[in-house]
Amino acid sequence: MRRIVDLTLPIEEHWRYGIKFAHTRSHANHDLWQATSYNLESHWFTHIDAPIHHDPEGVDLNAYPIQDWCITDCLILDFSDIGDNVGITGEMLEKANEKYKDKHFDSILIRTDRGKKVSWKTTEFWDNSPYVTEDGGIWIKNYNPKLVGYDFPQDYEIRKIRTMKPGDIIVQPVHEHVLKDGKILQIEYMTNLWEIGAETCQLIALPLNTQHADGSQIRVIAVVEE
Amino acid sequence: MRRIVDLTLPIEEHWRYGIKFAHTRSHANHDLWQATSYNLESHWFTHIDAPIHHDPEGVDLNAYPIQDWCITDCLILDFSDIGDNVGITGEMLEKANEKYKDKHFDSILIRTDRGKKVSWKTTEFWDNSPYVTEDGGIWIKNYNPKLVGYDFPQDYEIRKIRTMKPGDIIVQPVHEHVLKDGKILQIEYMTNLWEIGAETCQLIALPLNTQHADGSQIRVIAVVEE
Repeated sequence: MRRIVDLTLPIEEHWRYGIKFAHTRSHANHDLWQATSYNLESHWFTHIDAPIHHDPEGVDLNAYPIQDWCITDCLILDFSDIGDNVGITGEMLEKANEKYKDKHFDSILIRTDRGKKVSWKTTEFWDNSPYVTEDGGIWIKNYNPKLVGYDFPQDYEIRKIRTMKPGDIIVQPVHEHVLKDGKILQIEYMTNLWEIGAETCQLIALPLNTQHADGSQIRVIAVVEE
Repeated sequence: MRRIVDLTLPIEEHWRYGIKFAHTRSHANHDLWQATSYNLESHWFTHIDAPIHHDPEGVDLNAYPIQDWCITDCLILDFSDIGDNVGITGEMLEKANEKYKDKHFDSILIRTDRGKKVSWKTTEFWDNSPYVTEDGGIWIKNYNPKLVGYDFPQDYEIRKIRTMKPGDIIVQPVHEHVLKDGKILQIEYMTNLWEIGAETCQLIALPLNTQHADGSQIRVIAVVEE
């Protein structure tokens, strides 16, 4: 029996993003059909990061054919009992991986259940989230998955972006370490990891097919065989 | 051995659509990171249609949880030897399905290799494409797949949309029959079907997670076990 869990945030109006929806043709207007326009940015909602997002010398998504990473064996590292504002360190990641240390997974998900505890529509979701420390970012880099995903804002200072002013410096060591050298792709702002109900799954992740992208919306599902 | 074929058009500037890309932050501007904005409409590029696209009483994509249709067993009906402006009739579809008539597939793809013969960037791609006749649309409706996809503009009058003026009537019987009654989802403007190299495959189709959508960009892959 195959169970599918959608790990993707809905794309809808949200204070953090400037997305707006409008009908370009509508039944209300007695048009022949209905269609909807919307504006997006490459790092809004559940999305994938390519190295060039942070690294001027980094490669873009075209350097990663989806055939190599859109279907992967995935390990979920469980930090669902973590408190607010707590950093996930390399040591904690190593411990969470202990049971599976003799096997390498092409993708890893770091689970905190942030979106189960606090709605992602609130500022609280972002302001007091757990995060990954710099040495946690180095652990991920050394694990060297094809893909890493998170259900929480994984860099501590992501919380500062909503009040950022021109010239402010935001430091994101997890972004830096994970995206450096162009081996790992990173999926930000996933959800529903608590519904997978298993420590491993098949992960299927298919991004919008924008070209030479620094990032892109992505739909991600877990496939669990039971 | 698993082979993956991407069946999705690139999302890039195209005369038929009004998409524009712009950096909202960039390395050239010495910003801390790079991000890109773009505008979309629900029926641009490779996309899925929900019944409400054509039917004021029809349901939207929220009525179709992806768990029910994002991974399906798929039959490819091959019309790759068809000529320009030729209609694919119900009889032709029945004949193409003859070999598999004792099995029902949850998804069917109708293949003409239009994009291999003529670039989808030309007006010619649209203006002299093969199409599906009204009784072909009825055949699809009666076959009753969860999903039907095409690699060509399946309604004859789609070619008229690019020169359409306010008040013009465009008749799309395949849209009407397939989307009526809210059982079948339709994927328009697929490509690379000729690379599947098999009569059946597993089809994985994951749309952008917009809500209550009349349609949505979708990334579609074929998975072929060899």
